[in-house]
Amino acid sequence: MFITFEGPDGSGKSTQIGLLSEYLRESGCDALVTREPGGTTIGERIRTILHDVKNTGMSSEAEILLYSASRAQLVAELIRPNLAAGKTILCDRFYDSTIAYQGYGRGLDLAMLQRITAFAVKHLKPDLTFLLDLDVEAGLLRRERGDVEINRMDLQARSFYERVRQGYHELAATEPERWVIVNANRPIEVVQADLRATVIERMRIF
Amino acid sequence: MFITFEGPDGSGKSTQIGLLSEYLRESGCDALVTREPGGTTIGERIRTILHDVKNTGMSSEAEILLYSASRAQLVAELIRPNLAAGKTILCDRFYDSTIAYQGYGRGLDLAMLQRITAFAVKHLKPDLTFLLDLDVEAGLLRRERGDVEINRMDLQARSFYERVRQGYHELAATEPERWVIVNANRPIEVVQADLRATVIERMRIF
Repeated sequence: MFITFEGPDGSGKSTQIGLLSEYLRESGCDALVTREPGGTTIGERIRTILHDVKNTGMSSEAEILLYSASRAQLVAELIRPNLAAGKTILCDRFYDSTIAYQGYGRGLDLAMLQRITAFAVKHLKPDLTFLLDLDVEAGLLRRERGDVEINRMDLQARSFYERVRQGYHELAATEPERWVIVNANRPIEVVQADLRATVIERMRIF
Repeated sequence: MFITFEGPDGSGKSTQIGLLSEYLRESGCDALVTREPGGTTIGERIRTILHDVKNTGMSSEAEILLYSASRAQLVAELIRPNLAAGKTILCDRFYDSTIAYQGYGRGLDLAMLQRITAFAVKHLKPDLTFLLDLDVEAGLLRRERGDVEINRMDLQARSFYERVRQGYHELAATEPERWVIVNANRPIEVVQADLRATVIERMRIF
């Protein structure tokens, strides 16, 4: 089973993934955690370019191609072989981030982004995608409190984050069978309980 | 005027570009030299990933997306602004390398590569493209003599280079008004004289 986690930085994705993977392992499920951009040696080198605050002059096209390159490597080297081996993959961000951030956020052509994405992942699709939803105000406050590292993507206007959130909600509405929207503005344990309940339910069907 | 140089490693592209740019500058033409992958701070960091011999496990999709990312940044940051300022750009490799190496060489879908390329360069096209043509045997011999650095792309089978050369010739046949094929298996000065004559001729028309 291939599960992805979407939502703004500060929404608690990595904390929730950590807790969920522990729980799955204790339940006897072979769960593997990875992240985007990164997750492979090549991908982590791409990640440092993407997150370097010195690279503010990066063109929108270069940005989406770098994210896609990291993704292509992650799918080929890690996700596909491990899914084939029967493992459950928990991935912190996947192609929906590109559509939300570069498409809705930066206004790049959605159809073109989807074509590039399909090329990068060779049409692999998550079985389940969680949106850890947080209103923009709450997300910015969490980042200002310094709970998360500040990277190049944080140097954006507030309207950008509004468009990204709107994008996520539109994507979720287009594929309701894949997406589950979780209110991330609640205590960690409460959010985690929601995630566990959904995964258990889906694994039964799966 | 935007001039690109294609052909295998070892065909003398950088030597010829160096001589041609000197000649153009002495003739009062403001010529700027750049290269792919690389040419910008971001692009040079991408270049080190692409050329690292440790990265033999790179997927074909990640490879073409990394080349395209470097290209997108080069076009946005350097080529377009300098063309707009009236400069002549001499570029060591451009998108035809992707079509020849990843398309013809590795067998990736040509139409998809062209779409990704058009996205990366926002439909910018060279005014003139030189193919420094060398048969595969001569190219491999030059590399073995150690005239050029060995990089990840050199660890390929001979049949790969045959397909790349065939690809270049097909591309040149499709756009004969843009391409000029130059026999690179001749002394440096003789090749250079051909390049100069062509550029002078084209600048008159341009």
